[in-house]
Amino acid sequence: MEDDDESRSSGVLLSKVRMESFSDGVFAIAITLLVLDLAIRPPGTPFARFQHGWSTYLAYLGSFLTIGATWVAHNALTDRLESVDPIFLRLNLLFLLSVGFLPFPTRLVATALDEGEATQRVAAVVYGITLLVIRLLFALLTEYVRRGKHLRKPGADDADLIDARRKLPIVVAVYVVAILLSLVVPIVAIILYLLIAVFLFIPSRASRVVF
Amino acid sequence: MEDDDESRSSGVLLSKVRMESFSDGVFAIAITLLVLDLAIRPPGTPFARFQHGWSTYLAYLGSFLTIGATWVAHNALTDRLESVDPIFLRLNLLFLLSVGFLPFPTRLVATALDEGEATQRVAAVVYGITLLVIRLLFALLTEYVRRGKHLRKPGADDADLIDARRKLPIVVAVYVVAILLSLVVPIVAIILYLLIAVFLFIPSRASRVVF
Amino acid sequence: MEDDDESRSSGVLLSKVRMESFSDGVFAIAITLLVLDLAIRPPGTPFARFQHGWSTYLAYLGSFLTIGATWVAHNALTDRLESVDPIFLRLNLLFLLSVGFLPFPTRLVATALDEGEATQRVAAVVYGITLLVIRLLFALLTEYVRRGKHLRKPGADDADLIDARRKLPIVVAVYVVAILLSLVVPIVAIILYLLIAVFLFIPSRASRVVF
Amino acid sequence: MEDDDESRSSGVLLSKVRMESFSDGVFAIAITLLVLDLAIRPPGTPFARFQHGWSTYLAYLGSFLTIGATWVAHNALTDRLESVDPIFLRLNLLFLLSVGFLPFPTRLVATALDEGEATQRVAAVVYGITLLVIRLLFALLTEYVRRGKHLRKPGADDADLIDARRKLPIVVAVYVVAILLSLVVPIVAIILYLLIAVFLFIPSRASRVVF
Repeated sequence: MEDDDESRSSGVLLSKVRMESFSDGVFAIAITLLVLDLAIRPPGTPFARFQHGWSTYLAYLGSFLTIGATWVAHNALTDRLESVDPIFLRLNLLFLLSVGFLPFPTRLVATALDEGEATQRVAAVVYGITLLVIRLLFALLTEYVRRGKHLRKPGADDADLIDARRKLPIVVAVYVVAILLSLVVPIVAIILYLLIAVFLFIPSRASRVVF
Repeated sequence: MEDDDESRSSGVLLSKVRMESFSDGVFAIAITLLVLDLAIRPPGTPFARFQHGWSTYLAYLGSFLTIGATWVAHNALTDRLESVDPIFLRLNLLFLLSVGFLPFPTRLVATALDEGEATQRVAAVVYGITLLVIRLLFALLTEYVRRGKHLRKPGADDADLIDARRKLPIVVAVYVVAILLSLVVPIVAIILYLLIAVFLFIPSRASRVVF
Repeated sequence: MEDDDESRSSGVLLSKVRMESFSDGVFAIAITLLVLDLAIRPPGTPFARFQHGWSTYLAYLGSFLTIGATWVAHNALTDRLESVDPIFLRLNLLFLLSVGFLPFPTRLVATALDEGEATQRVAAVVYGITLLVIRLLFALLTEYVRRGKHLRKPGADDADLIDARRKLPIVVAVYVVAILLSLVVPIVAIILYLLIAVFLFIPSRASRVVF
Repeated sequence: MEDDDESRSSGVLLSKVRMESFSDGVFAIAITLLVLDLAIRPPGTPFARFQHGWSTYLAYLGSFLTIGATWVAHNALTDRLESVDPIFLRLNLLFLLSVGFLPFPTRLVATALDEGEATQRVAAVVYGITLLVIRLLFALLTEYVRRGKHLRKPGADDADLIDARRKLPIVVAVYVVAILLSLVVPIVAIILYLLIAVFLFIPSRASRVVF
């Protein structure tokens, strides 16, 4: 509010309020529908559902922790923004598209656990690729913020943004390994995805870093 | 907050906070349900769904990009508002009604792709009319803001609002051509709708302009 | 933010930010699900749905306009609040319960239009009672704000709150007439509900008044 | 906004805005879907649904009041926060997971009422455990805020946080009794859960206290 003149001077800068509130809406819907979907998986009567298929719950737990950790990282990223520009808004929309899509491959994995190996392979690969795309689009968003000094709050340092960029190849490598593993032993790959999600979710010194 | 007295002086001016937060809610729900609906289209087992019907995905991509670009434009429009009045709120509700309706014709188009030409024609026409109505209601909202100097932040210029009004006939003409095309070659029309959406979504110099 | 000390002095006053953001969430979900539900009513193939049953659309239009007008009125009411207390929050939750419930009787009415008179009567009565309950709970909220000077922004006058209270018996009387009419000619009652919704939605001098 | 320097000095403190807006999103979706689910329970034609099974409505009312009271308590808790840290965000995500899960055991209870005693026992136990977990995770969140003086607004006293901690064993004991009761007389246990929810929802002197 106080910096109206500044933001208008460059013409294309917008307040970040709506970007944050829209993003929170998409995150909240994705994570809540995930929980509700978890609750009615696998199909059957409510009680058959409940007693059966703990493996299903692992996939949902992984997705919940991934969306949760991604939300925390997105929060940490936008906290350092003073304003946003039209390019950031579009990159953010694509990133949210990938987040909002995650409940679908999660359901694929949950369904596949009742079926044959071949089906499980397809499901685990699609799930892994979605996780990787979320990660890459978030890296793109982070990189755009690192370069876009005009978007950042004065004084916000970019040490951890640089750090996040340095670590990106390792994270991508782990996901690629898990995706390749999906082609051989899908169940092991799904457990690996869960472990990555747990690692991302657990607060650590690394949690200061964006994702 | 600081301008309470001013807004109360005219009696009917309200803070824009809730209008923005309500709009973001509707946009977020519409776009996330679109993604989830995409994920379970076309009907069949999850794997049949996934392997089949890339044409379906084109319709969803077009709607996603349209809702995304519309959200960016709405963001740019409300960013220049200081407050809102009851007429703006109602026009905004009608506009949001059209946005929240878009997932339905999208599903019509996705379903029709598996059926005959006649069905595809109806679907493509309904889809095109919805896109045109969204565009016209947004133009109405923009025009109301252009005239409503009492709603705008002091110093906000309306050069791009005037520009948006000048371009409106061209945009409407393109949509009308696409709707007419739907009656002859629906598939081509759907690709044209997608191209319009891509054009609106891609950041450009035009992105400074409201829609 | 600036009045932290004041709000803490009375101990039970909370910032209104979350009440507004939670309410906007419920309103946005209710109205968007209404639109999506409209899109898949009446049951059948998408095209049978679309070509058939314009009477169904009247019920949805009435509910959309009612939720929209109620949101505008709620917005106008909370705009004059400085903070909220635990009682207001609970009254507001009950009010939101009635708003979030409206999609259900709307679907009852839409379904009943394909069935016999007796069914239509039940549907129209349930629909009318829900509308009346929304109206009464909003009146309760308004009355609580009128009495709760500690919640209001300094200088906010309560002329229109008193005005709203004076008009309440007329509004209740109209709803009661429509509910009684539902027992005789349900279709006429549904059109009357729609007319009331249109009247509430159209901006007028009365729109300065809370509902 | 004004305390940017302060929050950046400790490096990991974030504005609480997004935590509140995300939480409100999850609460709003959970409570609105509960209302919509209520409206289509028990299964059957809309009119069979409506005339039948008031016992079902008791379970939904209990869940509505529980989510409502929990939202009020969460609101009171976050109102005293100045900022949040990554650990708080993760604890809050786990807490929201339990809140977003509640609609599922609610549906279990509603479904079980039409079935045998054994089924009702399982449903009532699962429902009770979910309620207890929500309560325990909220206590964890409260305790974290009580210890985290760096998160609190200057001057916010923690008398009621200490009070909440003192009362926790009683609340847990009541839930444990109800869960044990579920194994013997599930219907009585469900009524007891409802009474606890009513007690939490009704504004009282205790409502100053966090939950």
